[in-house]
Amino acid sequence: MQNYKLTLCYDGTRYRGWQKQGNTAQTVQGKLETLLSRALEQPIEIAGSGRTDAGVHARRQVCSFRAETDKSCAELMALLREYLPEDIGALSLEKAPERFHARLSAVRKTYVYRVWNSDAPCVFERKYVYVEPRPLDLDAMRRAAADLCGRHEFSAFSTGKKTGRAATRTVESVAIERCGEEVRFTFTGDGFLYNMVRILTGTLLEVGLGDRRPDDMAAILASHSRARAGFTAPAQGLFLWDVTY
Amino acid sequence: MQNYKLTLCYDGTRYRGWQKQGNTAQTVQGKLETLLSRALEQPIEIAGSGRTDAGVHARRQVCSFRAETDKSCAELMALLREYLPEDIGALSLEKAPERFHARLSAVRKTYVYRVWNSDAPCVFERKYVYVEPRPLDLDAMRRAAADLCGRHEFSAFSTGKKTGRAATRTVESVAIERCGEEVRFTFTGDGFLYNMVRILTGTLLEVGLGDRRPDDMAAILASHSRARAGFTAPAQGLFLWDVTY
Repeated sequence: MQNYKLTLCYDGTRYRGWQKQGNTAQTVQGKLETLLSRALEQPIEIAGSGRTDAGVHARRQVCSFRAETDKSCAELMALLREYLPEDIGALSLEKAPERFHARLSAVRKTYVYRVWNSDAPCVFERKYVYVEPRPLDLDAMRRAAADLCGRHEFSAFSTGKKTGRAATRTVESVAIERCGEEVRFTFTGDGFLYNMVRILTGTLLEVGLGDRRPDDMAAILASHSRARAGFTAPAQGLFLWDVTY
Repeated sequence: MQNYKLTLCYDGTRYRGWQKQGNTAQTVQGKLETLLSRALEQPIEIAGSGRTDAGVHARRQVCSFRAETDKSCAELMALLREYLPEDIGALSLEKAPERFHARLSAVRKTYVYRVWNSDAPCVFERKYVYVEPRPLDLDAMRRAAADLCGRHEFSAFSTGKKTGRAATRTVESVAIERCGEEVRFTFTGDGFLYNMVRILTGTLLEVGLGDRRPDDMAAILASHSRARAGFTAPAQGLFLWDVTY
């Protein structure tokens, strides 16, 4: 059995997220497993670097799988590119060491959240941004974001049920940049809890709108209470941007 | 009656082009006229700077219309932004001099044709490019494009029925640039015949692929024969980019 590392991108609009759910659901993992299992005439199980929620996009998602085949990586790639739907792209495929696992071997992930911060229409990128036309105070958001960096229990910023050490993650950096009409939030860390990037973004947006103070973050973190944090920013603005091994 | 100049952008994917056709067709002009006629409680006729075909996009399309109303431009804009579908954006609206007409007053138009020239997948921009993964010789295409510039009868590059002076246009420039995986064709001129930009692009692509010689252009122009020119590049890669008055 050969182990493989596959890098993908996808437009999450049509999907119920990465992770397969039963037989019927429209998921990226499900599409891939079905395609590879048929093409290689063996049951293929795919491990992603992490789940993405329904509607979340991936600029780079990494996954791993084992298969026994005479086909070369180039032949497998040609097959993926021929049969994957147009909203899932195969970026690269390589043989991986036996112990490589897309989730367990990941050391760092980057997510980007895109906000269209203008009352001008956003026609061509509309499926990839969240629209917030009111003015945003970037400095206030940056001050708040600085307090989120470091190793913390992030249970206040998750709708998952994990607590304590299981909900502890290191956020290395949160960059907030304006580029034209767009404000882009870039989160890098060793891992993120369920809905964590979307709730962090929602809370930062409330700071940017002046509905919360920048120095509220420490108290929210210490509360471990989801109710204290801000709204969950919609899925369509979120991209899994990169995974580092 | 006040005359207005309205600048729009649209994603042409869902539309049968700019120009209304009967009562039922899904056209950009039809959508706008229906919306404005209802909102202003009077029949509104809209003149576009030119038609765009089914599936063609507009980064900037300019149109003009006359209306009698107490509403300010800002109020009319708010109304357009509230009721236009998400794939049509109102960029600006201003009062125009009595004699302004979006088509008759236009002095220059720019179209951009976007080609995704890579076998890497194009997931996020897939509705706005034409995919040609084979290598393109940009120098050959540029030499061919140089022979297209100037004042010519372009009937060989149109599926319209115009000939002679009615088919004569001045193409000021054709720029061909690579930006990453994309090759972008920018056509500027005083006007373009029906399908002309798509046939010019298709013919240049055949030069870029080595299926035609760069110096064929003069003979094609002189032939006045559509059969001599290349294929009609698909609508989805084409944008009406700008209109100058």
